[in-house]
Amino acid sequence: MKWVYDFSEGSRDMRDLLGGKGANVAEMTRILGPERVPAGFTITTEACVAYMDAAEFPAGLDDEVAAALARLEEQAGKRLGDPADPLLVSVRSGARESMPGMLDTVLNLGLNDASVAGLAARTGNERFAWDSYRRFVQMFGNVVVGIEGRRFEDLIAAEKRERGVRDDTELGTDSLRALTARFQELYDFPAEPAAQLRAAIGAVFGSWTGERAVTYRRINRIPDSWGTAVNVQQMVFGNKGETSGSGVAFSRDEVTGAPEPSGDFLPNAQGEDVVSGVRTPRDIRELADWQPQVYTQLLEILQTLERHYGDMQDTEFTVEEGRLYMLQTRNAKRPAQAAVRFAVDAVAEGLLERDAALMTIDAEALDALLHPTFDSQTTYEILATGVAASPGAAKGELVFSAAAAIEAADGGRAVILARPFTEADDVAGFHAAVGILTSEGGKASHAALVARGMGVPAVTGAASLEIDPDAGEIRRGGEVVLRAGDRVSLDGTAGTVTGDDVPLVEPQVGEAFETVLAWSDEARRLGVRANADAPEDAERARGFGAEGIGLCRTEHMFFGEDRHEAIVAVILADTDADRQAGLRRLLPLQQGDFEAIFAAMEGLPVTIRLLDPPLHEFLPSLAEIEERLREAKAAGGADAAALEHDLTRVRTLQEVNPMLGTRGVRLGILFPAIYEMQVEAIFAALAATRDRGLEVSAEIMVPLVDYRRELEILREQIVAIGERVGVERGRDYSLGTMIELPRACLRADEIAEEADFFSFGTNDLTQTALGFSRDDIEGRILGRYIDVKVFDRSPFETLDTPGVGQLVRMGAWLGRKTKEHLKLGVCGEHGGDPDSIDFFHNNGIDYVSCSPYRVPVARVAAAQAAIRATAT
Amino acid sequence: MKWVYDFSEGSRDMRDLLGGKGANVAEMTRILGPERVPAGFTITTEACVAYMDAAEFPAGLDDEVAAALARLEEQAGKRLGDPADPLLVSVRSGARESMPGMLDTVLNLGLNDASVAGLAARTGNERFAWDSYRRFVQMFGNVVVGIEGRRFEDLIAAEKRERGVRDDTELGTDSLRALTARFQELYDFPAEPAAQLRAAIGAVFGSWTGERAVTYRRINRIPDSWGTAVNVQQMVFGNKGETSGSGVAFSRDEVTGAPEPSGDFLPNAQGEDVVSGVRTPRDIRELADWQPQVYTQLLEILQTLERHYGDMQDTEFTVEEGRLYMLQTRNAKRPAQAAVRFAVDAVAEGLLERDAALMTIDAEALDALLHPTFDSQTTYEILATGVAASPGAAKGELVFSAAAAIEAADGGRAVILARPFTEADDVAGFHAAVGILTSEGGKASHAALVARGMGVPAVTGAASLEIDPDAGEIRRGGEVVLRAGDRVSLDGTAGTVTGDDVPLVEPQVGEAFETVLAWSDEARRLGVRANADAPEDAERARGFGAEGIGLCRTEHMFFGEDRHEAIVAVILADTDADRQAGLRRLLPLQQGDFEAIFAAMEGLPVTIRLLDPPLHEFLPSLAEIEERLREAKAAGGADAAALEHDLTRVRTLQEVNPMLGTRGVRLGILFPAIYEMQVEAIFAALAATRDRGLEVSAEIMVPLVDYRRELEILREQIVAIGERVGVERGRDYSLGTMIELPRACLRADEIAEEADFFSFGTNDLTQTALGFSRDDIEGRILGRYIDVKVFDRSPFETLDTPGVGQLVRMGAWLGRKTKEHLKLGVCGEHGGDPDSIDFFHNNGIDYVSCSPYRVPVARVAAAQAAIRATAT
Repeated sequence: MKWVYDFSEGSRDMRDLLGGKGANVAEMTRILGPERVPAGFTITTEACVAYMDAAEFPAGLDDEVAAALARLEEQAGKRLGDPADPLLVSVRSGARESMPGMLDTVLNLGLNDASVAGLAARTGNERFAWDSYRRFVQMFGNVVVGIEGRRFEDLIAAEKRERGVRDDTELGTDSLRALTARFQELYDFPAEPAAQLRAAIGAVFGSWTGERAVTYRRINRIPDSWGTAVNVQQMVFGNKGETSGSGVAFSRDEVTGAPEPSGDFLPNAQGEDVVSGVRTPRDIRELADWQPQVYTQLLEILQTLERHYGDMQDTEFTVEEGRLYMLQTRNAKRPAQAAVRFAVDAVAEGLLERDAALMTIDAEALDALLHPTFDSQTTYEILATGVAASPGAAKGELVFSAAAAIEAADGGRAVILARPFTEADDVAGFHAAVGILTSEGGKASHAALVARGMGVPAVTGAASLEIDPDAGEIRRGGEVVLRAGDRVSLDGTAGTVTGDDVPLVEPQVGEAFETVLAWSDEARRLGVRANADAPEDAERARGFGAEGIGLCRTEHMFFGEDRHEAIVAVILADTDADRQAGLRRLLPLQQGDFEAIFAAMEGLPVTIRLLDPPLHEFLPSLAEIEERLREAKAAGGADAAALEHDLTRVRTLQEVNPMLGTRGVRLGILFPAIYEMQVEAIFAALAATRDRGLEVSAEIMVPLVDYRRELEILREQIVAIGERVGVERGRDYSLGTMIELPRACLRADEIAEEADFFSFGTNDLTQTALGFSRDDIEGRILGRYIDVKVFDRSPFETLDTPGVGQLVRMGAWLGRKTKEHLKLGVCGEHGGDPDSIDFFHNNGIDYVSCSPYRVPVARVAAAQAAIRATAT
Repeated sequence: MKWVYDFSEGSRDMRDLLGGKGANVAEMTRILGPERVPAGFTITTEACVAYMDAAEFPAGLDDEVAAALARLEEQAGKRLGDPADPLLVSVRSGARESMPGMLDTVLNLGLNDASVAGLAARTGNERFAWDSYRRFVQMFGNVVVGIEGRRFEDLIAAEKRERGVRDDTELGTDSLRALTARFQELYDFPAEPAAQLRAAIGAVFGSWTGERAVTYRRINRIPDSWGTAVNVQQMVFGNKGETSGSGVAFSRDEVTGAPEPSGDFLPNAQGEDVVSGVRTPRDIRELADWQPQVYTQLLEILQTLERHYGDMQDTEFTVEEGRLYMLQTRNAKRPAQAAVRFAVDAVAEGLLERDAALMTIDAEALDALLHPTFDSQTTYEILATGVAASPGAAKGELVFSAAAAIEAADGGRAVILARPFTEADDVAGFHAAVGILTSEGGKASHAALVARGMGVPAVTGAASLEIDPDAGEIRRGGEVVLRAGDRVSLDGTAGTVTGDDVPLVEPQVGEAFETVLAWSDEARRLGVRANADAPEDAERARGFGAEGIGLCRTEHMFFGEDRHEAIVAVILADTDADRQAGLRRLLPLQQGDFEAIFAAMEGLPVTIRLLDPPLHEFLPSLAEIEERLREAKAAGGADAAALEHDLTRVRTLQEVNPMLGTRGVRLGILFPAIYEMQVEAIFAALAATRDRGLEVSAEIMVPLVDYRRELEILREQIVAIGERVGVERGRDYSLGTMIELPRACLRADEIAEEADFFSFGTNDLTQTALGFSRDDIEGRILGRYIDVKVFDRSPFETLDTPGVGQLVRMGAWLGRKTKEHLKLGVCGEHGGDPDSIDFFHNNGIDYVSCSPYRVPVARVAAAQAAIRATAT
């Protein structure tokens, strides 16, 4: 096992082994030449995994590190700890996927009481040397030894008080020397550089299993088993004076995707200062004024990197006394709008082919483009303007902590999370909030990065606001303008914040997105339909490019006032005459529903699922009737008899496990009258719509089928009604079934004999295959199961392909064994999930159906699945 | 397609095509010679199926019938309808499986106004001829044309009144002639014999889909698709005078299995008179006095047939003027004790090899041998003695109709169904009753046959009792002795009935049964264990030959008074200290439970399932606490706070679908303390039992596993507790899981990595694979689904092999892929069902586990599965 690779040995293909940063630094070294990239070496992720397993360095690692260090020293012409001219190194984490700020870093390693003098001598800058040493002792103590950061800060504050200064930069060499000594009293500082290095490497390994990192991985679906690599690199100094500086540069605007570089830099600062958001940095374009030749070099390098990687780049650089060093490059995380714009521009510029361009888009993130924005017709008072850090508009109740955000979200309330700046511990609150507001930090700040990654609208650096979590208020110019619980609205696309309740408007799909969607439609094989129960939803879905309705649930149609009363009458009826009277009232209403949906989807198929939920779902609860009965009795008992009757009926219909009870086709067989009414309404609507000259394609879907015979019974019944109304199976409508029970998957060959199509109901299939009641499990067990690593994401979000997926595959294969051209769809929520879509593409499904808003996401994901399948 | 076969063309191998009766008559013709079997031909079951499909005779059938009839006429030397010497035929149904009395029969076909004279002339018996004609016109009108039987009976009664006679036999030729004419006025009687024959054949076909037949098939699990054959056979007459008669003869005693012929006969009667139970027949041994040479011939024939078929025979015969004709033979249905005795005797006599003898036993029926009997130590007043028609003792509430029996059984009450005699319409009541009592009919009566088939104890022909359903009472000598609702006890082995409440005693396994079980144990490969939760059950199971406990459920152990209080305290605890206190109270109690079970099963394996049901099952219901809270508030509210707390906790634990909720391993992961206590109790009990010098083999079973990781977490936890207590996995205990979710079957290879054994929980696997909540489905849907032919028996009774069975097969195969010698058991109720056992034998299962009483059944069924598998 080789544990250590010099930068010159690596390449970007070695990402799994060297981590993203290690692989990219190696790659950069090859492209840009060693003069642009400080030298160093990478300790592999495998070494980290071995360390996690054994809780100690794997055999041979120490020797390999020593040898690599010797090579580095030779290349740099300096030795670690050299009292004359010391080599200083950074020790940085670098996982396969970027986890910004979640893993540990140690800078300026190699300093001690002897080498600090050498550094001072060689740089002729004693204050710089001691400031570096002070920073190192502080960082080492905090990161490696685990001393609370506050204890160092307290000592610095005390020194500043004593010296009567306000800023760190005003502290002189003596102060820094004194602080360094005091810091060393807080712990047992190892003077020996090799010992420093060994400890720092161990700390980076250890940070992989730290709480912050674990939480981040859980949210971002990064496996715990990967481990992180460790990069040891010669230090260069952005804090060496006024011709030095550090920055972050994107090859294109990281928010809009516009083809111009963007980013932030800070003169006379180390990289951490830029990223932390503590000092508000300067725009990258100001570099042109500050050091024009560095700016030109940087632009050239960004272009070179982008061409080389074929993707937008996110780089870190340091300028040391006028010389530009590139410390890192990686494919830029970007919000959906930037991703879409980049893809379109990259093709126009000849940078990428269409398919490759499509693959640069994170389909899941496109959801953000479909988020609402502020209504431009409204006027509102702008409370503050900040950085447009993550696009989309949101409004909600103001909260000041992740905990408060989570609590409110659990209670179903929309909240905006406000913090002066955010840290890793706040990430859980990002999930719970509909929007993020900070008073500090730019586009590359922690808050901005995390919010964009999650598609949560955010405004950062709203500097005119004082956000005071302890007081639970936001002040502007000393005056309280908002308190916890107040309504607040923000527009993360414009960077504006207001206390007014601004109406939000539905998103419009932009031109670049249209192009991406058009390309996707050409590339994909999977059809994309929408789940829609009402004409408005159908129209919206059509607007988003749905090619039909894959699931029109009919139960929601019983929930209008007049309808609900009628269906309750049907269910509670004692005589057939009463039941029929109720059904006769419902028939024209249902027919109207179907006519409106058919009209909205003219020319496209509409799959209508017959009534599925258990009947008692339409009735008042037992407790409610009991309460009313008690009241009626107390009041003299006039209605008591009727209520007693209802109570008995509701009790009869009550079920222990309604999910596994009298639903779907079972209802259709036990109480045929309701299905008969529905089918008659569908057929009458079909005929009426055709009479208006519109083309209609109706697909009647029977839910919850286990046995061929169940569907046969329904088929006979439906065909007979069709004959009565004058419509014919095959010619006027088709007839199929949901495949949503394990048995149906296993006997799909038989069931296919009766069906024109299958639609996999993967929600219920997941519930039955796993024995997981979604209602009961999601809140209680999923979180715990993710914690203890039973799975890394909810099987209701992304299809459990090894389990449920096997059943889908079997069902599809067996169905097609009977009918080669059997139409196969998916109408569970997985139909809008990119990973699941990939699986469906590869397992013979014809179309997916998802919520209207997810249709564009599904179109792109379907295209990517097709491209991926062709590539492999 | 050949639709018609002469008897001389058929054989017993052609049962599917010719039906049981047709195949056996053909076979008998070959063995006994044509002189012993009236000639005839069989119309195939395929013709019936074609008739059912097309609702008309298939092409060619008429011609083939005409040709076969011509051959029959030639052989008999008589022609159908010949005015001089007419051939008369019977037209009888004959399905693949016997369905006694369920399908139609027409006798004396061929008579009309012309041929009746010929019959009179040839027989010299005008009264006989007219009585035959009268019977034919009546039967044809009733069976073929569908005229209500009552209308014929009314005319007979009127004639008897007019003539002043009591019995039919007293009516003279004139009366019979007049009645025949009056009968013909009730419908359009076809005089033409060919038309009579065609109509009768159609009527037999049609009776296959009649309600009675459909109900019988449903209960007896006979597929509707088989159809019935039709046998047309020359009539011989048992009613031709005093040297004629008809009877039913068994080659051995049909109740005890004793090696002596048994049966009933009636002189001067047709076969229907014997079977109907209307006249009480004479014992077959009296034949020796009546016509000794006929008796000798019959005994010889019975022996010949038994040797030929290698099984006990049930025959019908007719003696026509001293000449013996065999009309039918079939393997005798028999109660369990007769089946067991026959098997043992048959081997002793050299009639059968052991394996073949075992295969003659209906394993399912053995259950009856394990039924209770009257306590022989008690004295009781015998109310009546009748025929010991179906063995076993029972007691319950007296009811007089099938409907009342069903209603009472639904209410959980044990009932005895009493009828003067029973008919097909009463069959549903047999299922609901624990015992059957009739005042008429012998061992071959409908009541006796059906009761024996179902294993329900029955006393028939208790002639001293007047059973009056209309009055709802039973009289003896005019005095009312029992009324509806009274307690009654009967002993179907002895034939006694009493109004006393006689204690029932547990069955003892007899010597012949012991022999059968010993043979079974040699023949079978499958192990047989029992499901037992308490030491008494464990002992009983061991007594019945269980080779271990396959499922010891631990939840029942929390239901003693002190225990229940403690577990409730654990569940409602707010602090860890309270929870631990409750668990500490439970620990020694649980340990005691396990010690007692280990001692009872010394030397045999005991599989203990950790707590499975959701916690709220241990708590009072929401409604109950709400009620108590209302009372507490009304009373001043002292306990209100505590009750509010409980209410909140119970609400939190409430689940929408508890079957799919926080159960099994999920509980173990969410609330580890309960499992920890259980495992500690098991290990402590194990150690304590060993200290007593007893051998213990404990298997810890984790329920409801979906993912390998779930079991891994529990494995780590259990192994750690073991280390603390000083017991070791592999050496002291093994650790496995229930496979009871579809996902577990699909990922069994992964799960097997963590398991020493699997036990298929086919109850829950059926619930999840089919999406059927047993609690909700059994009462509402199963009956309806059997009616509409979705399935022919409950999937909870016999494993749904095409669906659930596939999952079991997959789980077994994948588990063994990972661990070649993984132990595989089944602990669902299917473990005691013979058909399911056959499936388990053939799919690599090592053992089944069932209720203690079913253990002997399972041992025999397992042997039969092994023999069957070897034979094919």
